[in-house]
Amino acid sequence: MTNAVVAIGGNAILRKGEAATVENQMNNLRRTCAPLARMVKEGYGVTLVHGNGPQVGNILLQNEIAREEVPPMPLDVCVAQSQGQIGLMLQQAMTEALYKEGISRTVVCLLTRVMVDPAGQNPTPSKPIGPYYGSEGLERLRLNNWTISEDRARGGWRRIVPSPRPLSIIEGGAVRSLVATGEYVVIAAGGGGVPVTKCHNHLCGVEAVVDKDLAAQVLARCIGDELLIMLTDVDAAYLDYKTPIQRGIGETTAAEMRTYLEQGHFAPGSMAPKVEAGVEFTSSTGHTSIITTPELLDNALKSKAGTRIIA
Amino acid sequence: MTNAVVAIGGNAILRKGEAATVENQMNNLRRTCAPLARMVKEGYGVTLVHGNGPQVGNILLQNEIAREEVPPMPLDVCVAQSQGQIGLMLQQAMTEALYKEGISRTVVCLLTRVMVDPAGQNPTPSKPIGPYYGSEGLERLRLNNWTISEDRARGGWRRIVPSPRPLSIIEGGAVRSLVATGEYVVIAAGGGGVPVTKCHNHLCGVEAVVDKDLAAQVLARCIGDELLIMLTDVDAAYLDYKTPIQRGIGETTAAEMRTYLEQGHFAPGSMAPKVEAGVEFTSSTGHTSIITTPELLDNALKSKAGTRIIA
Repeated sequence: MTNAVVAIGGNAILRKGEAATVENQMNNLRRTCAPLARMVKEGYGVTLVHGNGPQVGNILLQNEIAREEVPPMPLDVCVAQSQGQIGLMLQQAMTEALYKEGISRTVVCLLTRVMVDPAGQNPTPSKPIGPYYGSEGLERLRLNNWTISEDRARGGWRRIVPSPRPLSIIEGGAVRSLVATGEYVVIAAGGGGVPVTKCHNHLCGVEAVVDKDLAAQVLARCIGDELLIMLTDVDAAYLDYKTPIQRGIGETTAAEMRTYLEQGHFAPGSMAPKVEAGVEFTSSTGHTSIITTPELLDNALKSKAGTRIIA
Repeated sequence: MTNAVVAIGGNAILRKGEAATVENQMNNLRRTCAPLARMVKEGYGVTLVHGNGPQVGNILLQNEIAREEVPPMPLDVCVAQSQGQIGLMLQQAMTEALYKEGISRTVVCLLTRVMVDPAGQNPTPSKPIGPYYGSEGLERLRLNNWTISEDRARGGWRRIVPSPRPLSIIEGGAVRSLVATGEYVVIAAGGGGVPVTKCHNHLCGVEAVVDKDLAAQVLARCIGDELLIMLTDVDAAYLDYKTPIQRGIGETTAAEMRTYLEQGHFAPGSMAPKVEAGVEFTSSTGHTSIITTPELLDNALKSKAGTRIIA
């Protein structure tokens, strides 16, 4: 059995502009889970990692709006809440998709912490999160001692947090144990995991967010998986994307892909971390990484679609 | 190694009247986790179940207050969010307590669904949840098609939901696998679990809440555990509680305890479900159930404190 980690982009759960209702999110997840269930049927072991951008943003917004009544939770706890929220929806949608394929396998979701090195790469705040604040909210942003950044196009201020690199998955051994039984589809490292660091004698939560594709490749290496798949809303990675000379990348070596990455072909925070995760996974394990859409997954597994990064 | 399920009451996380800040909850959890870490050190396998009353109430309140900006999530998703929220705090506090005892064991938290029979016992709404609504909110309660109940003492209306009996733990096999390795402290069935039923060909979320002590005993039986411990804010179960003739119950058989239960000695929604869970666990497995406080746990394990229900 080939074991694969599949990272699901935020847009596979909630499309841009769509209302964040449970119905919309479940409908999107049902569409995404259908090809994943077929993958399980074909004999793959599947571990799922999901994004959480819009959802954790909404949880932070609820915390902010209701702050007079309910003490707001710190970012690490909000990330854990988003793991519960999205984890359940994904668990239910995947359970349904597996039933439709006649497969009896339990979908389990592990709350996941990820060890980060806050002094490592990207230590400075870089990622905007949560609601936009007007001038009246600016005082509160300052009171909270947050780093803030103005978004002139949207006419507001936002909190920005670091996006440290993931070093290891605290619950990685548990994921490996469950995957090894062959009885489960495991959901882990949702939203990139809750970032923690060693402090004193234990683990402290960090007010930061971890890129889910980078977390997915750390998880895949930790489990010993032989395939990393990143699902997004474009069919493949492109060179000179959105220019008249754009061309999709099919099968490429990790070394070539790293060169394209260094040449700046891929959008930061979007395609770049996927390519980076794929290059890191493939170059360190020798196994293949795939970037494609949920719709093209069946074909991508047969080498007929998507970007394949090979050793 | 004796494996035990330990159910932690809501008051071990947040005391009545205390602000629901992360600091207060972490401080309470640290106190609760110290004796649990000693238990692990003494050789017990420990699986933790926690309550979620105040926390899911606050999440529902945030959903309500922010509803113009963020579509509210249904109750089953809110329960899953509370599993993430409390799960992370408990995981972090327990990790810290284990470090202090010099024990290297990973604390993992499984998002947990619990199968309920909505047509079974307690099918009618009985449990009040979430915020109090004044006359201006009454219309919304009706629009949502919720069953509501007036609380004259508090001068408001509340939503009431069913509290169906737990039949089985969907992720029970995964908990058993992890416990069997002896490498983990597992957190599961938080808040009694997310209630689901079989519908068509899959599992549907149910807008209900499951008693966490009853869920804990189902989990303990599913894992094959030899001990069920329920931690609360009184040192033991009492006969004629809060009357001049109240007397604590020490070691008693399940049959005697069932008689006391039927005689109405225990408060519904408080001590009664604990006694019921203990009687059910002990009479069906022959193993002991304990009811006590976190502070008395060390003594209770040596039969020197608490209520012990024996076969």
